[in-house]
Amino acid sequence: MKDFMNVDFLLNGNTTKLLYQEVSTLPIIDYHCHIDAKEIYDNLTFDTITEAWLKADHYKWRAMRNMGVDERLITGDAEDYDKFVAWATIMPYLAGHPLYHFSHMELKKYMGITTPLSKETAGDVYQRANKVLRNLPVRELIKKSNVEVVVTTNDPIEDLRYHTLLKEDGYSVKVLPAFRPDKALNVEKDGYAEYIEKLESVVGFAINDFASLKLALVNRLDYFVSLGCKASDHGLDSMPFARNATTEILDNAVKARAISNEYVDAFKTELLLFLAKEYVKRNVVMELHFGCKRNPNAKTFKKLGVDTGFDAILGATRIDNLYPLLNAMAEADALPKTLLFSLNPADNAELVTIMGSFNEAPFKGKVQQGSAWWFNDNKGGMENQISTYALGAPIDTFIGMLTDSRSFLSYERHDYFRRILCNFLGSLVDNGEYPLSQLEYLKEIARNICYYNAKNYFNF
Amino acid sequence: MKDFMNVDFLLNGNTTKLLYQEVSTLPIIDYHCHIDAKEIYDNLTFDTITEAWLKADHYKWRAMRNMGVDERLITGDAEDYDKFVAWATIMPYLAGHPLYHFSHMELKKYMGITTPLSKETAGDVYQRANKVLRNLPVRELIKKSNVEVVVTTNDPIEDLRYHTLLKEDGYSVKVLPAFRPDKALNVEKDGYAEYIEKLESVVGFAINDFASLKLALVNRLDYFVSLGCKASDHGLDSMPFARNATTEILDNAVKARAISNEYVDAFKTELLLFLAKEYVKRNVVMELHFGCKRNPNAKTFKKLGVDTGFDAILGATRIDNLYPLLNAMAEADALPKTLLFSLNPADNAELVTIMGSFNEAPFKGKVQQGSAWWFNDNKGGMENQISTYALGAPIDTFIGMLTDSRSFLSYERHDYFRRILCNFLGSLVDNGEYPLSQLEYLKEIARNICYYNAKNYFNF
Amino acid sequence: MKDFMNVDFLLNGNTTKLLYQEVSTLPIIDYHCHIDAKEIYDNLTFDTITEAWLKADHYKWRAMRNMGVDERLITGDAEDYDKFVAWATIMPYLAGHPLYHFSHMELKKYMGITTPLSKETAGDVYQRANKVLRNLPVRELIKKSNVEVVVTTNDPIEDLRYHTLLKEDGYSVKVLPAFRPDKALNVEKDGYAEYIEKLESVVGFAINDFASLKLALVNRLDYFVSLGCKASDHGLDSMPFARNATTEILDNAVKARAISNEYVDAFKTELLLFLAKEYVKRNVVMELHFGCKRNPNAKTFKKLGVDTGFDAILGATRIDNLYPLLNAMAEADALPKTLLFSLNPADNAELVTIMGSFNEAPFKGKVQQGSAWWFNDNKGGMENQISTYALGAPIDTFIGMLTDSRSFLSYERHDYFRRILCNFLGSLVDNGEYPLSQLEYLKEIARNICYYNAKNYFNF
Repeated sequence: MKDFMNVDFLLNGNTTKLLYQEVSTLPIIDYHCHIDAKEIYDNLTFDTITEAWLKADHYKWRAMRNMGVDERLITGDAEDYDKFVAWATIMPYLAGHPLYHFSHMELKKYMGITTPLSKETAGDVYQRANKVLRNLPVRELIKKSNVEVVVTTNDPIEDLRYHTLLKEDGYSVKVLPAFRPDKALNVEKDGYAEYIEKLESVVGFAINDFASLKLALVNRLDYFVSLGCKASDHGLDSMPFARNATTEILDNAVKARAISNEYVDAFKTELLLFLAKEYVKRNVVMELHFGCKRNPNAKTFKKLGVDTGFDAILGATRIDNLYPLLNAMAEADALPKTLLFSLNPADNAELVTIMGSFNEAPFKGKVQQGSAWWFNDNKGGMENQISTYALGAPIDTFIGMLTDSRSFLSYERHDYFRRILCNFLGSLVDNGEYPLSQLEYLKEIARNICYYNAKNYFNF
Repeated sequence: MKDFMNVDFLLNGNTTKLLYQEVSTLPIIDYHCHIDAKEIYDNLTFDTITEAWLKADHYKWRAMRNMGVDERLITGDAEDYDKFVAWATIMPYLAGHPLYHFSHMELKKYMGITTPLSKETAGDVYQRANKVLRNLPVRELIKKSNVEVVVTTNDPIEDLRYHTLLKEDGYSVKVLPAFRPDKALNVEKDGYAEYIEKLESVVGFAINDFASLKLALVNRLDYFVSLGCKASDHGLDSMPFARNATTEILDNAVKARAISNEYVDAFKTELLLFLAKEYVKRNVVMELHFGCKRNPNAKTFKKLGVDTGFDAILGATRIDNLYPLLNAMAEADALPKTLLFSLNPADNAELVTIMGSFNEAPFKGKVQQGSAWWFNDNKGGMENQISTYALGAPIDTFIGMLTDSRSFLSYERHDYFRRILCNFLGSLVDNGEYPLSQLEYLKEIARNICYYNAKNYFNF
Repeated sequence: MKDFMNVDFLLNGNTTKLLYQEVSTLPIIDYHCHIDAKEIYDNLTFDTITEAWLKADHYKWRAMRNMGVDERLITGDAEDYDKFVAWATIMPYLAGHPLYHFSHMELKKYMGITTPLSKETAGDVYQRANKVLRNLPVRELIKKSNVEVVVTTNDPIEDLRYHTLLKEDGYSVKVLPAFRPDKALNVEKDGYAEYIEKLESVVGFAINDFASLKLALVNRLDYFVSLGCKASDHGLDSMPFARNATTEILDNAVKARAISNEYVDAFKTELLLFLAKEYVKRNVVMELHFGCKRNPNAKTFKKLGVDTGFDAILGATRIDNLYPLLNAMAEADALPKTLLFSLNPADNAELVTIMGSFNEAPFKGKVQQGSAWWFNDNKGGMENQISTYALGAPIDTFIGMLTDSRSFLSYERHDYFRRILCNFLGSLVDNGEYPLSQLEYLKEIARNICYYNAKNYFNF
């Protein structure tokens, strides 16, 4: 029996431990997250652990709602202390849940607290954690986490002022933007007209046809690239593909800021194909996120808005549309390095085979499945993603972990991932499936996945 | 190496054994099964183990057919002894199959027989088992199983006479009906007219429009509730959702006892939405069962009828329809406590996330995935359901096991489930994922899932 | 810790080892592969291991492309030695990949080489392997592999000359054809007219209506059967089912060598139903392969053609169409023994339940899921398929492993499968889930799955 989350947490066997030694101190490249650069620039300090943990973390909100905690103690006007106690109170009931691990890893790493959290220990932990956090502004927190690169997710209309200021400031951690033009693609959604207006004002010219929309996006993409942008991202929910729109239809859609249902997919497809070509020109990686059902609960959406813990997995991801989409890019010599993220783990096996359909020299893992995402960002999800990947493609191609987080305390998830990865690789040796005599190669694979692959893939 | 099905069957590690001690003697709440209340009232006694095991258990029939056993020995006119020998003969070939475990658990628990069953031991087991069963009428059998509540599944037209009689009789086990109005929803199926006629005669008024159909169902629901009904159930095969029917269309459908294909989903949707509201008013839990392909083999269906072991999993469960369906209920403040059962395990991950989309205070686990169902009601299926649930939601919310069985000997499946659950929880401690110092909390979780959650959820 | 791929490779526990002893020397029935009978007849000898390993193995090509190897070293005009070095160089990075195991198993079994392959050892391995291979013509290689039956996959228009010659030659291994009429069903594909012309010239009569197409196929099927054909095979990508075509429509399609999109499924369905009946008459097994996305990358398809390592899994397999398809066969008393192979592992659970819907005496496992196929033909895929099968149906019915390979060195995959199977069965005993006292039964199951079931099922 192992002690709770001790030094060998999740590490079984000696080979695993040797591999973990190899990667545990490597820097972190967090190539996709939702942190606000302004908060880094302002060097935000948390007054309470509630601010750090419970102000924006919809994973925790969701768990609290599952347990029947009153909304006042979740997103409502309750005191910070009461919210923390509410969280601490449900903590022991989260056996086997990733938040049980993440929370205790963060308490240990950043606050030196190894007491299991519960209503009994809530008061003491609150005092001790706050004391530490008040002396740990986020710039230090990020450095303490051994982070080398942070990639934020940004809309094309953002001015990226704080990315610029951070650079000018000489902050030693690279804070780079990723280009996420979802709102420019979502022609079917409310607010499209308002969004295009804002985009017009940012680029300084009218957007009244498809060509000017493309021009505006390229204009912004170039600006992003000038600030070190290496990645784009698309949240597509269900994967679109259609080629039934004429130029006239696309032009009219932009002009009208609206489109009939039958052409929504075509609009997105044409814009994706265009952008893909531009990403290739600028060596920008393309991330595709799909398989997501957003805001299914209209009542809570109206009350609390987006990203409040009500989203879920979409079954009908239409993942087969990736074939014609990626093929159209490849045929036009315009297929960027591409990361595929489906929220539905039932897609994992197919995703890994799609990689093989579109890879080409000289890239290592040009098209690849991304790390276990969101509802899969946990022990079971990671183990499943890693072993499925390794069975279908050389695991050495995998660029590894990201946080996808809104929280500055999430970097410990990289350590979590590294432990799980090393356990996977080390177990191969222990089971006689990989020779101990080739351990140096295995160490190289571990280092690649934990650091070097991401560095090379994005060209950081 | 462990001895065959000994006291530590499926229990690995000391923590697991401690947890199992905590739950092994808790009463059983069997909140969903297909037992006939009349047989309990009549205090049925089995003359042979064939009657108890092979008269109605289509799980066993299916396994026998897979092995090529002649239908005469399965559902045909063969002698009880010959049928038992046929079953015993294939038993050793069921290595790794749940029926191998269930059969031996039942032999041990109820008949004190620990001999592995095979054609060699069939004769001896038959004699010994029959001798016990002839002295173990079902009321005693249920009490011996430590059952506190049995919830049967009943059509609205049933008079529930035997539920009433059992209550009057002072039988110490609660035998309660669940309301399953499938036939009232299945407007597209043969026999709809005949069914509505029967319903008319039960309620005593004409059913010629949608309003009178709803009235009739509420009338019956109230009757069920008056006899202690706490649960409803809907077998939907594939999940419907459509709102394209006008009142006129719905009225005409009821009047004509038929509907055109394009409105079948809408008919079901509107009736479900109505019923959901009525369930909320009466604090009745709503169970949704889907992902099922019923009677795919027309030839055997014609010969043997429904529930004879030919059903299977449906791939196209249309599970995404749960989002608008549950949302429509939530928007009308008419979302009952809801249990989701998909027969397709590929839906598990999505189901667990759907829970998070519709939970709300003060309920603990208001919307939740039900226990591994039917073809998943086995070691692999349970382990998968439990670990997926725990990764996506607090496992403490889970109301746990049911038998879904036609057999009086199935209560051992609750013990099976408890062992698997404790093994899951105990392993977390052994792997350093949960602190031994918090064992009291883990015991509480185990007790909750095995007994208290179901008791509170249904308000038994 | 176990030594790398030693005698107990993948075997855990003593029961497993006992079971493996029982099956390790049983002959191999390779009931589905893509070997060319001509090469056996010619008694092909490989001059280099590159010829044996890298000339046609698109699994290896795919892995090399994933790693970014230049196409010249994969399918291009590079020297054999350079290609081998390229392969050896990526080998250590394939930790956890089936090719890592298969390659080292083949080196050990056929060439006596136990050195882990890498760029460091490439030169030495190349020399030693070539030396052995030059003295090991394929007929000896097959015999050394303990193969009893090889079933090749053949188009109806093939003359099967080499199957005949091999028989006449008295080659001790049975080399039998399987009937795969995909091209006759694929009326929607390019080249259909040319194909039907060839078929006309082979059968010697005009094919201008559906009846003459059926006649032509039966003509060829009879010829195949006369040469020992026991199996048919259909590659369907996505499973079709439709009954909307009149005889006239079908006749016109054959005459025009083309059909409108709305009748493609119906054309295939009617032809499948017809062929199924003919298979039953001749006791020919029907294999259905589906869930495949072929040639999704148009650019590489144009350059390299089919079967070059770009195929992938199809998500939308329409597996539910199996219900009406198999039902239509069953209703016409024309359901052959049927093997179901989906490339999408998300279909596994459903496939196992479909078996139960269509089984009937006196056949053992009449309709059954085939062994883990292609992208699932690996440790994880096999373990998943075996355990899912065993949970849903008596594992004793399973006819076990095939290579599906183009390579003469692939027979070691049968050993791989046997180890994994024995580990599954043996672990049941070690976990107390199956009694050691019934070990003889477990041995029988192991022998059945590894040899006897396939022999009986196909009637070899």
